[in-house]
Amino acid sequence: MSMDRLIEKIVQTQNPTVAGLDPKLEFIPAAIKEKAYKAYGHTLKAAAKAILEFNRGLIDALCDIVPAVKPQCAYYEMYGWQGVKVLYKTIEYAREKGMYVITDGKRNDIGTTMEAYAVAHLGEVAVGEERCTPFGADALTVNGYLGSDGISPLLKVCAAQDKGIFVLAKTSNPSSGELQDKPIGDTPVYRVMGEMCQQWGQALPGKYGYSGVGAVVGATYPEQLGMLRKELSATFFLVPGYGAQGGGAQDVAGAFDTNGLGAIVNSSRAIMTAYKKESGAKESEYAACARREALRMKEDITRYIGEIRLPEQK
Amino acid sequence: MSMDRLIEKIVQTQNPTVAGLDPKLEFIPAAIKEKAYKAYGHTLKAAAKAILEFNRGLIDALCDIVPAVKPQCAYYEMYGWQGVKVLYKTIEYAREKGMYVITDGKRNDIGTTMEAYAVAHLGEVAVGEERCTPFGADALTVNGYLGSDGISPLLKVCAAQDKGIFVLAKTSNPSSGELQDKPIGDTPVYRVMGEMCQQWGQALPGKYGYSGVGAVVGATYPEQLGMLRKELSATFFLVPGYGAQGGGAQDVAGAFDTNGLGAIVNSSRAIMTAYKKESGAKESEYAACARREALRMKEDITRYIGEIRLPEQK
Repeated sequence: MSMDRLIEKIVQTQNPTVAGLDPKLEFIPAAIKEKAYKAYGHTLKAAAKAILEFNRGLIDALCDIVPAVKPQCAYYEMYGWQGVKVLYKTIEYAREKGMYVITDGKRNDIGTTMEAYAVAHLGEVAVGEERCTPFGADALTVNGYLGSDGISPLLKVCAAQDKGIFVLAKTSNPSSGELQDKPIGDTPVYRVMGEMCQQWGQALPGKYGYSGVGAVVGATYPEQLGMLRKELSATFFLVPGYGAQGGGAQDVAGAFDTNGLGAIVNSSRAIMTAYKKESGAKESEYAACARREALRMKEDITRYIGEIRLPEQK
Repeated sequence: MSMDRLIEKIVQTQNPTVAGLDPKLEFIPAAIKEKAYKAYGHTLKAAAKAILEFNRGLIDALCDIVPAVKPQCAYYEMYGWQGVKVLYKTIEYAREKGMYVITDGKRNDIGTTMEAYAVAHLGEVAVGEERCTPFGADALTVNGYLGSDGISPLLKVCAAQDKGIFVLAKTSNPSSGELQDKPIGDTPVYRVMGEMCQQWGQALPGKYGYSGVGAVVGATYPEQLGMLRKELSATFFLVPGYGAQGGGAQDVAGAFDTNGLGAIVNSSRAIMTAYKKESGAKESEYAACARREALRMKEDITRYIGEIRLPEQK
């Protein structure tokens, strides 16, 4: 099962983190951009070429020490269909290098439309007599505001294709409480959503106790993170908000179980732009700097959780 | 302001409906598909070519009688980046033909990531010294689960580029109540979301009384639709669920104000596949059949609301 594969990669690398690939042009070394502009002008095609080269460099530098990457769809769509083509190529390259790929799309819709998103990002589509892979990620982030009609179509595709999803529960942003903290009876919205994740996950049981339906819970709300970890024993967490958004290693410690499993913590900008902060680093060393930052983050988090172990199989 | 342009198109065509463009391959006449397969094999490229020809035929047949089209992203992403390229070309073609384009993406994220989605679908992105248009729609559907941090970045782009958004409030699906009907104090979640839309809209006032922040409210919940119409006087509604999902003309009548404005009702499948239901129709007549179905839907709805008039300007 898809979440089992992620867990095995985490244990193998002893690293419960995921590198976000949010390649805004301003994050990319000038030399890479200039080469693309020279070949293709100041066009979306040039932007796309630069992003792909940058991403491949990062993936090469990270693939043996980081278990997963999380490309954020918005930064690819921002460069038009040419950017979306690079999303496809980035996913393909990361998977070739053995990484688990979480497409961060926060997709949501109902019925056949949600099924189309599932097929798009996790499945295969029939064209005439062939079956084609539109994007081919291992997991997709989704928004559960529409209820079970928005999630059930995903579960079918996940079961058939060995894929997983992460549903937004408590997001890392300051205003997430405007809706998510509002009480429904005695239970805030984010916990209602967490309980729905736990239920949806029953359709995709995993051999290490975590289902194929994970939840997104922000590092910036450590109290809620710890509470949800206790309540949602079968729900794996994707934890954004570490680093740039203010969450520290101590804040995410409560997301893990006694085996050091149960969560994967994301860092995007700090890894991608490490070369801008490392003293004396050249732009051309961006990949090596990203690797050092990824290792620093791994050490920062794992000192709170110790060795990561596979539990007894269920 | 963007919603003003939509309102003017609705009055001009006397038609408060939008044609959804959800081009699954199974909806497309065999002759169009066979031509594409012959040229490009059973590939995503062939699928994309067939979809574009189908969409252009529909747009040609509808552009003088229907004010807007609503391409649903999922059905383009399902055919990979090649499909997403057709989303771009469909938007471009519909706008050339004078139609208002609502991209149905239900996008959601926070901060700079949401800004990237806004730029992607409604704005322009800088590449070197040039400004490029990634997708260029007039409006985008979004999901407000993340709160104001997810909406504010859109409002900036909408103000600068004369664009609008529609935020999910009460969706048309059977399980929408699992979260959306749950009471927060005495107020169900969907009304809390509706009130947030009304507030967000204050940043984008329109000259006909409707702001640039609309709401999605399903035709399948006529009571809630009518109640929200009364409560949210500055919020224009995008109403899915008419036809295939079970909403009738009487069910949507409550979405309109006394000028016959305040809502635009979507129909996707019934228009796209009208040729499959019209007795004696050939596949090659799909565009003419779509036009007849669109006119039938217009008559069906407008008999409840009468002539559509521009209100006094505010």
